[in-house]
Amino acid sequence: MFDYIINPKVESYIKNLSVEEDPLIKEMEEYARKNDFPIIGREGGRVLHLIAKIKNPELIVEVGSGFGYSAYWFLKALKKGKVVLTDYQEKNIKLARQFLDKGGFRDRAEFRVGDGIKIGKEYKNIDILFLDLEKARYLEAIKELENNLSDDGIVIADNVLFQGKVIFEPENRKSKILREFNSYMFEKFFSVILPVRDGILIACKKS
Amino acid sequence: MFDYIINPKVESYIKNLSVEEDPLIKEMEEYARKNDFPIIGREGGRVLHLIAKIKNPELIVEVGSGFGYSAYWFLKALKKGKVVLTDYQEKNIKLARQFLDKGGFRDRAEFRVGDGIKIGKEYKNIDILFLDLEKARYLEAIKELENNLSDDGIVIADNVLFQGKVIFEPENRKSKILREFNSYMFEKFFSVILPVRDGILIACKKS
Repeated sequence: MFDYIINPKVESYIKNLSVEEDPLIKEMEEYARKNDFPIIGREGGRVLHLIAKIKNPELIVEVGSGFGYSAYWFLKALKKGKVVLTDYQEKNIKLARQFLDKGGFRDRAEFRVGDGIKIGKEYKNIDILFLDLEKARYLEAIKELENNLSDDGIVIADNVLFQGKVIFEPENRKSKILREFNSYMFEKFFSVILPVRDGILIACKKS
Repeated sequence: MFDYIINPKVESYIKNLSVEEDPLIKEMEEYARKNDFPIIGREGGRVLHLIAKIKNPELIVEVGSGFGYSAYWFLKALKKGKVVLTDYQEKNIKLARQFLDKGGFRDRAEFRVGDGIKIGKEYKNIDILFLDLEKARYLEAIKELENNLSDDGIVIADNVLFQGKVIFEPENRKSKILREFNSYMFEKFFSVILPVRDGILIACKKS
């Protein structure tokens, strides 16, 4: 009963304030719903979009793109620059390409199949590093990629409260790794965790 | 029982992740606690700081500065630029000046006593407009000041869920105005409400 993060009535009030007019967003959300595919969700997507608008980045690298929902929110915010999408599954990347083509972003996105951490290491001066991979690999991901951030690069990580389990099931194996990840991020970076859905961490370098 | 916004256990987990080492932050929080003075709080302050770091603004105008707690979080993030503080009470502004002097920001802040909306209108090209005035005047404030934003200016408004009353006591007079304000912000701007403390709205212009 007390295991939720945000009061559902509050979540619902916030959600109902925005009216989505982009049919592609709705189509992607419908695909996620039908296929039970985890995505960052409407409120999470809006946070990514807002941060990208404020940041105006040249290069966004996503570690774990799924079928491109987060990338689409990012791309809609960019005046310039590109998004690198990564996913293990060729099927997801193919679908992402179809969606982003449809959205008019064919030339602004790179589509890569494979290990997102390894692929990420090929890129220098990452302005926004977006982590949405297997929870057990979050800590590995930031340690491997933090040196590839640009001087004022930021990190955004989804699901850092892992459906609340980070707090309510601290002994869970993935919770433990996420707790370590969160502690690391607060120590090494200047971080905040936004209680949007199951936690979005945003971090910049300490100055 | 269900009137809170965020699960207190979640709030507490997030709060405990950060260790504040700046004695001035602690001193200001202590002053607020002792005098029962409403401030945006540690988590809210960290959000302001992060957004200012990402945005790197030239000009921040605060409508409702109190004794300077939010301004201090902003100033600590800036490489350049300044913050204009406004408050009705001379006593608050005087105290803000003392705190910010102590923090080394004497030359980066303007201290103005009076109606923050009227004072705000004197400034053009506001990069971050921060609203933290009487709740009944939020809608008036944005309507009066939105044209003073820079092209990619953003708005940050504190307490937009008004201790949850916006959802749980919708007939409350201030709730009504805040509901109108929130609806206006989502219609006219691209907005998100972060359920940090009692709601921080962040908005950029629609493109």
